[in-house]
Amino acid sequence: LSVPTDAGAALAALRRACGAAPLLTGVDEVAPYLSDHRHLYRGQALGVALPDTVAQLSEILAWCNARGVGVVPQGGNTSYCGGATPDESGTQLVIGLARMNRIRAIDAANLSMTVEAGCLLASVQQAAAEAGCYFPLELGSAGSCQIGGNLSTNAGGLNVLRFGMARDLTLGIEAVLPDGRVFQRLRALRKDNTGYDLKALLIGAEGTLGIITAATLKLWPAIRTTATAFLAVPDVSAAIAVLAQLRGAAGERLNSFELLPRAAIELACRHIPGTRAPLGLSNEWYVLCELSSFVDEPLDELLQQALTRAISTGQVLDATLAANEGQRLAFWALREGIPTAQRRAGLGVKHDISVPVSALPAFVAEASAWVRRAVPDGTLVAYGHAGDGNLHFNVNWLDGADAQHVATQEPVIRRAIHDLVAAHGGSISAEHGIGQLKVDELRRYTSAVELGTMRAIKRALDPKGIMNPGKIFTPS
Amino acid sequence: LSVPTDAGAALAALRRACGAAPLLTGVDEVAPYLSDHRHLYRGQALGVALPDTVAQLSEILAWCNARGVGVVPQGGNTSYCGGATPDESGTQLVIGLARMNRIRAIDAANLSMTVEAGCLLASVQQAAAEAGCYFPLELGSAGSCQIGGNLSTNAGGLNVLRFGMARDLTLGIEAVLPDGRVFQRLRALRKDNTGYDLKALLIGAEGTLGIITAATLKLWPAIRTTATAFLAVPDVSAAIAVLAQLRGAAGERLNSFELLPRAAIELACRHIPGTRAPLGLSNEWYVLCELSSFVDEPLDELLQQALTRAISTGQVLDATLAANEGQRLAFWALREGIPTAQRRAGLGVKHDISVPVSALPAFVAEASAWVRRAVPDGTLVAYGHAGDGNLHFNVNWLDGADAQHVATQEPVIRRAIHDLVAAHGGSISAEHGIGQLKVDELRRYTSAVELGTMRAIKRALDPKGIMNPGKIFTPS
Repeated sequence: LSVPTDAGAALAALRRACGAAPLLTGVDEVAPYLSDHRHLYRGQALGVALPDTVAQLSEILAWCNARGVGVVPQGGNTSYCGGATPDESGTQLVIGLARMNRIRAIDAANLSMTVEAGCLLASVQQAAAEAGCYFPLELGSAGSCQIGGNLSTNAGGLNVLRFGMARDLTLGIEAVLPDGRVFQRLRALRKDNTGYDLKALLIGAEGTLGIITAATLKLWPAIRTTATAFLAVPDVSAAIAVLAQLRGAAGERLNSFELLPRAAIELACRHIPGTRAPLGLSNEWYVLCELSSFVDEPLDELLQQALTRAISTGQVLDATLAANEGQRLAFWALREGIPTAQRRAGLGVKHDISVPVSALPAFVAEASAWVRRAVPDGTLVAYGHAGDGNLHFNVNWLDGADAQHVATQEPVIRRAIHDLVAAHGGSISAEHGIGQLKVDELRRYTSAVELGTMRAIKRALDPKGIMNPGKIFTPS
Repeated sequence: LSVPTDAGAALAALRRACGAAPLLTGVDEVAPYLSDHRHLYRGQALGVALPDTVAQLSEILAWCNARGVGVVPQGGNTSYCGGATPDESGTQLVIGLARMNRIRAIDAANLSMTVEAGCLLASVQQAAAEAGCYFPLELGSAGSCQIGGNLSTNAGGLNVLRFGMARDLTLGIEAVLPDGRVFQRLRALRKDNTGYDLKALLIGAEGTLGIITAATLKLWPAIRTTATAFLAVPDVSAAIAVLAQLRGAAGERLNSFELLPRAAIELACRHIPGTRAPLGLSNEWYVLCELSSFVDEPLDELLQQALTRAISTGQVLDATLAANEGQRLAFWALREGIPTAQRRAGLGVKHDISVPVSALPAFVAEASAWVRRAVPDGTLVAYGHAGDGNLHFNVNWLDGADAQHVATQEPVIRRAIHDLVAAHGGSISAEHGIGQLKVDELRRYTSAVELGTMRAIKRALDPKGIMNPGKIFTPS
């Protein structure tokens, strides 16, 4: 652990500020907090504080603010953008939220629950289920990510089509502001027009305006029935037409609509043991879709009928319904295995983009053509949440490529893909956020008015710039 | 029109700044803009500018900002809180948005549309319907309120239970900032995590941070079927139990759940010609509920079955389903006639409160007991959107009362009701906002941390304090 020369005194003072909260400083105990899970970044830190209560966190932030010590909040450390990794200066304090992990309240009659930031997403889902309710945020990392991180990054995932992003699922938050004051607004209300929506501002701010310590979340009744299908479709246009038809046939019951190219399924089958392609690999495009309902109703029948109609018009080439929960889980294991399969397959470059659903066919056609032309040794693996316009538009080198080659190609590919995204009115970060990774991209694709407004808010709420420095934007 | 003594020169300069945009200054043409529709406030103004384009509005705001001229944005002038009425100084400029009323784009495949601020809500609904889609914001004033005002106040209304508030219905906005710069982010995206959610901040800011000029809105597929019922229930607890049962039986198809006390129905029947009580007036509490679906399905049957079960357990005493669209509209006319009936019935005091749905029975019991005890000559008419916890908790003097008596009672009643709301974790403004009317109430029921944070943002984005001065909070 490399720390500045006057670190001894600083550490002693910090330890006093932490009070009863553990402060990790040993090389081994600090190490897991210093790198992101994609290993894109490796930082240093003054230490890692692990507060247990809002009062402890408040003391720590007040201390850091008074001394201008940078603070890096960290939940489950699952950021794809280095959003929770400290810089290399060794002067920043990492604050882990894991110990603040209480379920404070569940109100089934109001369909709401209040949880602390350090609760695992899976624990939140589980607690909701035990109360006969459903919390719809669903990510591959549910077992390791924390709800505080989910909110700080406005997490998306598999059910956005129906339920929205993390911000849409939140009724209230509690947060410690940079100077240690506690913002508490854990009202469990669906309607509350009393001033600015500070909650919406703090959610998705990636820890640059304060640290979310608890949230009151919306719940839904428990899911009673599910119907899941795997489809082969002729092209992306047909997939989008099928999306509209399923909406027309099932309304809000459609909760997931994932687009999968053959390349993604091949990768998963090759690298994830036990995975198989439900409809073979003779088509270019596949869809995994799911209906669910809070009511007992014949969803399989409804889905079957809609797909039969789509097959008769040629918009679906082939389809198979999950006959039981085992098959359903197998479909989803295939889908959720893709990121791991890509990692195992070798080097690649990732993009987390969205465009209007209506623009997906043209965007995919243009971007794919560019990749074929400009990256002849790469394989396009563009898959994801097409139902809400979000694709993970990745290029992989499956035949091996040295890191230097990929590093040279990456900025060229990123520029081309993101320029096409912008031309289609899309976003260069649909759900992963900005973190450290996309600071330059955000600056390139965001107007001066908008960036200036964000910076004005940052200066107003964090005048000393201690909160997660270097994330979202570099200090002005 | 009373204007400051150097008004001649100021007006001439303002007229130049307005360019091609009309600037009204005549007493008669300005008069409708100087008072709110409840006639709680009457102000004066330098004039009323009616820009037609974003560029014109930008010029006007830049001019006002340079000179520190206060600006009062006004849409359909339907605020319940004086949010769009200028003060009495005669130094403020009212800016009417009515001429910026284009439907810019509709994308049915993406379920989105982009509209300008001055579009009537009814026009937005209509344009969506003509494209085979549905825009779910629904208010009694749909024919006169404008979407820009709906967004600036984060309007609620009859469908919040299912679709959320105006903020939840918005994908993107365009706004002119106080210094005339244009913030444009009309992306039609369901997922976009690129920095702070400035959209959510400007929505509901009641014109204190800038003027919303256009918005990209979420659409849904057209509604295909509806089922509407009028119920008699023994008490508020039973109503809330029925709400949960309907959710369990109908899931998201439940879009409205309005609680109506006998007093409200009596008032409507007495003062709104052609109105009748569907189930008579022998019970204390009634409910108007509606299911709707984007799919052809037997909703009447579903609702009938659910109500039959609720009748068998005694939670519903009596029920009648609308047999046709005429009966359905009659049920809604009764509901929507209540505010007018109250006005015709004489003086009263209004509250727009919300509490968690689970707290409604206790809150109504306690607040009603207080009114009976403390206001023996008043009649409680507490009705509204119980499905989302929002009641219009009003006290009316039906036997006539002089204005002086009501004015003396009003602050006492407001204090008692709002204190009870706060004790139940509720909001003193569920959907109407703060405007001028509730500035003191907001200060009383909001923490110093929260108010201080709002003020810091106000100062950062509107350093000269020109935007809708005196609304939400008094200048610091």
